[in-house]
Amino acid sequence: MVILGIDPGYAIVGYGVIRYEGGKMSVIDYGKITTEANIPLSKRLKLIYDSLTQLIETFKPDVVAVEELFFNSNVKTAIAVGHARGVIILAAANKNTKIAEYTPLQIKQAVVGYGRADKNQVQQMVKMFLKLKEVPKPDDTADALAVAICHANSSALSNQLGLV
Amino acid sequence: MVILGIDPGYAIVGYGVIRYEGGKMSVIDYGKITTEANIPLSKRLKLIYDSLTQLIETFKPDVVAVEELFFNSNVKTAIAVGHARGVIILAAANKNTKIAEYTPLQIKQAVVGYGRADKNQVQQMVKMFLKLKEVPKPDDTADALAVAICHANSSALSNQLGLV
Repeated sequence: MVILGIDPGYAIVGYGVIRYEGGKMSVIDYGKITTEANIPLSKRLKLIYDSLTQLIETFKPDVVAVEELFFNSNVKTAIAVGHARGVIILAAANKNTKIAEYTPLQIKQAVVGYGRADKNQVQQMVKMFLKLKEVPKPDDTADALAVAICHANSSALSNQLGLV
Repeated sequence: MVILGIDPGYAIVGYGVIRYEGGKMSVIDYGKITTEANIPLSKRLKLIYDSLTQLIETFKPDVVAVEELFFNSNVKTAIAVGHARGVIILAAANKNTKIAEYTPLQIKQAVVGYGRADKNQVQQMVKMFLKLKEVPKPDDTADALAVAICHANSSALSNQLGLV
């Protein structure tokens, strides 16, 4: 199974592609899509959509795993990132690719083992799971790989429990 | 000039198509796109995107005028409507159609003449400007026509002032 993990954002979208087969994970690719603040909203959304579509065409993932958004206070930021996450999900839907969504709590629990893990702990576990020499940068990319690992671990658990 | 006005939403997207020529407005079409709460997010976004694309192909608007989002408190709703507004703007961008954005304040000022107008006043002015027999229903559709009228009045003003 090939999993494309996405950390949704507006200025930076992190992505990570992993393979999960026979209980083993391996990394295929990871990186980021960036959009400049000085270009119009519509062009930024189109850039994100086109880049995601390209990634899906290139890696043909079985599933796109996307982090859910949680904001406590900044409604303006929430709306902006909501726009970006909308076109990300649409890109997967338009390529008939399955979509899985995970909360930050679910991701931390699946990757580190408990829900109040900090960013550094998540990143160290990403490095370990995927046998990387260094923690991927920026944080958005490491987070995207964490979402992909979360999906792999969750589907392994579902298999064990006979849920799928 | 043909203007497609949009009141962005998640369960209901209002739309209104008007013609503005020689200082005169006329209505071409109006209505709503609805998505059911019990279908997955990705399918709802795809339905909104595909419906918008269809409207743009049918009416070939010179501009898509979209209301900006303002939420004071409910971040969860803001994120959800942000998703929908993202795919609406993408649909216009993917059809190389110009996009104009207006705040609720700008719309009220352009349609009624002052920014603290209430919903009923806006709807009565929509009915009057477009010589309709009744106020269009639901509110989302009337709001979408108001955005289109706002764009017509704003571009008329820009023309008079030599801004375009």
